[in-house]
Amino acid sequence: MIAGVDLGGTQIRIAVAGSDGRVTRTDRTHTADLVTPERVVSWAAARIRALVQRSSLDLVTVGAPGPIDQGRGVLVNPPNLPGWHNVPLVEMVQRELGCRALIENDANLAAVGEHARGAGQGVQTMVYITWSTGVGGGLIINGRLWSGAHGSAGEIGHMIIDPAGPLDSCGQRGCLEAFCGGRALSRASGESADVLFAAAAGGDHDALRRVTAAAEKMGLALINLSNLFDPDLFVVGGGVTRSWRLVAPVMRATLRASPFIRPARRPGLRRARLGDDGGLVGALEWARIHL
Amino acid sequence: MIAGVDLGGTQIRIAVAGSDGRVTRTDRTHTADLVTPERVVSWAAARIRALVQRSSLDLVTVGAPGPIDQGRGVLVNPPNLPGWHNVPLVEMVQRELGCRALIENDANLAAVGEHARGAGQGVQTMVYITWSTGVGGGLIINGRLWSGAHGSAGEIGHMIIDPAGPLDSCGQRGCLEAFCGGRALSRASGESADVLFAAAAGGDHDALRRVTAAAEKMGLALINLSNLFDPDLFVVGGGVTRSWRLVAPVMRATLRASPFIRPARRPGLRRARLGDDGGLVGALEWARIHL
Repeated sequence: MIAGVDLGGTQIRIAVAGSDGRVTRTDRTHTADLVTPERVVSWAAARIRALVQRSSLDLVTVGAPGPIDQGRGVLVNPPNLPGWHNVPLVEMVQRELGCRALIENDANLAAVGEHARGAGQGVQTMVYITWSTGVGGGLIINGRLWSGAHGSAGEIGHMIIDPAGPLDSCGQRGCLEAFCGGRALSRASGESADVLFAAAAGGDHDALRRVTAAAEKMGLALINLSNLFDPDLFVVGGGVTRSWRLVAPVMRATLRASPFIRPARRPGLRRARLGDDGGLVGALEWARIHL
Repeated sequence: MIAGVDLGGTQIRIAVAGSDGRVTRTDRTHTADLVTPERVVSWAAARIRALVQRSSLDLVTVGAPGPIDQGRGVLVNPPNLPGWHNVPLVEMVQRELGCRALIENDANLAAVGEHARGAGQGVQTMVYITWSTGVGGGLIINGRLWSGAHGSAGEIGHMIIDPAGPLDSCGQRGCLEAFCGGRALSRASGESADVLFAAAAGGDHDALRRVTAAAEKMGLALINLSNLFDPDLFVVGGGVTRSWRLVAPVMRATLRASPFIRPARRPGLRRARLGDDGGLVGALEWARIHL
């Protein structure tokens, strides 16, 4: 059997599956309840052991927020897991479970999940974008994840789209995330992103203007990604998918307005299908591929 | 034997090689002297036949400025070959030479050339950037050219880096090329790019300011490409390489100034080694790979 762990700032989720990668059992808990990396790994290992019962476990993939040091299997310093610094996650999981473990960026795994079992099925080349509090992504090239020479490809949120723009939490100025991310929208509007999007959906002019401006910036990112990667398809996941009818037409119109991207090479744009399960499904798929 | 054709706005160059891809003979002429696509193909075919003599020719690669319709082997409407519209180049070359022909974007082929026999030798993943009158590029991922789902990947010059920037010839606003390309620099300064770079090298303050600002924008592009692709190496070719000591330190400093790109994942930056031969060497290498 194989297992996947989705280690998020809010929840930790696990799933086990047969070698076909189809989920058989899942469990979850709140990250904050467990506090330390050691207790998180212990909880996940104990639950995985309970779920696989007497079957043997062959491979576990842990999906985690970046940055990740792939060479050493270390979670470096994820901004949404405060207190986690240089955690040797691969070694810890392997020791607890006695089987091989992989670690991969959670947005990359969501890309793998959407490609294998979600909105990107059957497509050779796609860019997955997660648009929530932050903005991230993953690249599928010729049917395979391209995670970069150092495991850092697909950092779409940190593409600079206006060097005079606001300072992003990463330290760069004018990143896509500094215009579009929920954290940035909340800071600029003084409201939570949820409230802002709800107000926009209700017709509030100022909220609608802010949401539209963010979707236009995301549309510029689609233009840049089309000109750099030339994918078949964009798949967008994350919290923004709950406001799809507000943002998708603006993103699509911005992409269509580029005279340089002829219709014959204009990628499609789809909403992610797996919702919050994308990363977990991708973790299992990643384990299946590496069996 | 194999042959390569580099179809440029100024010159047409051909080379023939054995199946190891090493150039044995070359020839060239001025594009303007031949006027029509038919005469260009006739000249290239006649010269290739003369150079291979009695050997049999197995495969020819034609490198041409984009956009290219790979599916139909058609050169669509290259801006620097006025009067060339929807030229079925693959079919024409195959008919004239009686052997299989491939067509590929010239910047992509320069990437292949620099990777196989130039500054990128031994590197798994690199981004090649050509910085001349226009700005283009090619992506080598895991040792292979990634030309995109529709043959349009690597259009680095058309990455938007400032949506309020100048209008580019492609119709988009604020493209990298609209800030850095020789054509844009010439329009902004009222001097040819050659004169501008020479003045900057001579210490002229205004010229130096303009060249430095362009190199900073190119440095932003390196940041974006690092965050999206995560390559091992950047290789920069084109006319700007004659002013390498002016632009390279600025590009390098801009890339280093990104706090998000840790030193461990910061790609190298090298000047192209093959000069004007990059595209032709790449055309032969592309033929060799596809034998």
